[in-house]
Amino acid sequence: MQQVIDKLNKDKKEQWPEFFDAISKELAELKYNLTEKLPIKSKLLSEIVKYVFIAGGKRLRPALCFLSAKATGGVTDKHLVLAELTELIHTASLVHDDIIDSAHLRRGEETVNSLWNDKISVITGDFLFGQASVKLGELENTEIVKIYANVLSDLCDGEIEQYSSKFDTKISWEKYLHKSTAKTASLFAAACKSAAILNNQSLEDIKLANNFGLYLGIAFQIVDDTLDFTSNSTELGKAVASDLKQGIITAPTLFALSASDDRAKQIQVLIESRFNEREEDFKKAINLVIELEGCKKAAMMAKEYIEKANASLSFVKDRTFHTYLTSVGDYVLSRLN
Amino acid sequence: MQQVIDKLNKDKKEQWPEFFDAISKELAELKYNLTEKLPIKSKLLSEIVKYVFIAGGKRLRPALCFLSAKATGGVTDKHLVLAELTELIHTASLVHDDIIDSAHLRRGEETVNSLWNDKISVITGDFLFGQASVKLGELENTEIVKIYANVLSDLCDGEIEQYSSKFDTKISWEKYLHKSTAKTASLFAAACKSAAILNNQSLEDIKLANNFGLYLGIAFQIVDDTLDFTSNSTELGKAVASDLKQGIITAPTLFALSASDDRAKQIQVLIESRFNEREEDFKKAINLVIELEGCKKAAMMAKEYIEKANASLSFVKDRTFHTYLTSVGDYVLSRLN
Repeated sequence: MQQVIDKLNKDKKEQWPEFFDAISKELAELKYNLTEKLPIKSKLLSEIVKYVFIAGGKRLRPALCFLSAKATGGVTDKHLVLAELTELIHTASLVHDDIIDSAHLRRGEETVNSLWNDKISVITGDFLFGQASVKLGELENTEIVKIYANVLSDLCDGEIEQYSSKFDTKISWEKYLHKSTAKTASLFAAACKSAAILNNQSLEDIKLANNFGLYLGIAFQIVDDTLDFTSNSTELGKAVASDLKQGIITAPTLFALSASDDRAKQIQVLIESRFNEREEDFKKAINLVIELEGCKKAAMMAKEYIEKANASLSFVKDRTFHTYLTSVGDYVLSRLN
Repeated sequence: MQQVIDKLNKDKKEQWPEFFDAISKELAELKYNLTEKLPIKSKLLSEIVKYVFIAGGKRLRPALCFLSAKATGGVTDKHLVLAELTELIHTASLVHDDIIDSAHLRRGEETVNSLWNDKISVITGDFLFGQASVKLGELENTEIVKIYANVLSDLCDGEIEQYSSKFDTKISWEKYLHKSTAKTASLFAAACKSAAILNNQSLEDIKLANNFGLYLGIAFQIVDDTLDFTSNSTELGKAVASDLKQGIITAPTLFALSASDDRAKQIQVLIESRFNEREEDFKKAINLVIELEGCKKAAMMAKEYIEKANASLSFVKDRTFHTYLTSVGDYVLSRLN
């Protein structure tokens, strides 16, 4: 196990965009707290938690906490706690999602359920949720408790909506956006909003910080859903179009389904027949989504949400951090290039 | 599904001890809130949640909230929320535990993972934990947020300790009691303590309310562990000695293992060999635990904890509710008869 962790540490060259430089000290402290300071009595769980946090992504959500904090007066000790609990909740939900989706790979690394098993994944996710609650208690702020409680409720709603609408080609845009908000944007919004609350900003500015995170989060989810079609499996760290294969209808497919073209009907039939369980029918559906410009239109939609996010940035008086927060949106969109 | 729920409603004749009469109105409201008022958008999840709450037990933890509230000034709207979140957390942890333990029966009814599957159980548990967080936010009390955050952390610690010490016959009493506190007594203590906090009791009385719940909870767990050996499978609603079969060493086995008798060594060898995967070796181990008076000694130990619980009841000035709370301990012990 130690070898796996060492290898991960070595492999994860942190190729972060520039705005991360402004918060590198805070992110380093966060990483230390997540990998070294959680109170874990079991050796097995300690190894697993290290594994997930070292394997784990770019820490965009904590970065939003820190940038929003710096943009509204500075990073306090409470912002460090906020960033930590935000990442704990995100990671816990991924660990449980991977059970629900029977996922074997995430970001190119084996999932906890794949390396260990589903039971261990249940415990690991529950542990991380539990630690997030402890951190939430440390904040001693009833407003933020409510915000994050709603995030937890939203995360689960999003997962249920996704699970119960598989292979449903009649899913509406409203439902897709609601699910994306619940699964992703709600936590982005909470991170930005709560950072502003901890810095005692005005109600109007707190609302703007919330909207910035919300729209950014929706854009992030649309980009993720688009990458699922356009990236190769090495870039994705998992199989191409794994969402579609599971029957999860996302923005590119929705755009393709609504095209005034006979091929839209073909996609519908392919999805509803669950690709007749044939790889070639699945590949045909992917190609039709791309041919009907589903990905191009989804990318445009993501761009519009980033513009809405940036239009909320008037809560940031500091020019430097205004620029940094704008560049978060640029970064989210740049993943499509 | 509706038929299953109707049948459960009919079968569950509520044979509650007398102290429940004093809080029947509150318990009815709680049941209504749990089965009819949770905000559930998915039809499937709505059915599952109804199933678990109608199948679900005597509501001893909410009863402790209500009795502690009445004993310290009365039941407020916040106590109703407290009772609800307490039962939500308890139920969520059972749903996830049943995945971890691959349990097919609980209280004579099929588990969620058995009737549906593990994925659905993960979502259901997460939903219930999420709703508990929302209720916790509604209380607007940072002290209680901290208490329940620690309960969540404890529940998970207890489950991990149990999972990682299976078939370990060297497990100490300290570890067993710690696990029992984490898995069970911590939530009992939180319920009593928080009810007293909401009624603005003195620090000393809050501590006593905590200790009452704590010792009662430990006794409850020891009784549960003893019933696992002494009840038949109909009474248990699951297989006899299912803990031992899974390698979980509880009070009766610990007492038997520490007997100055050759048979103690025999039990040790049987457990460490995992009963050689033979039913007769497993049955031999059960009989040896009973022969060496493991259950009798465990029952004595439970009684001692009930005495410690009752010794903490000086926070209750009202004679009627002092009597009611004492009778909770009697009820816990009466399950052994």
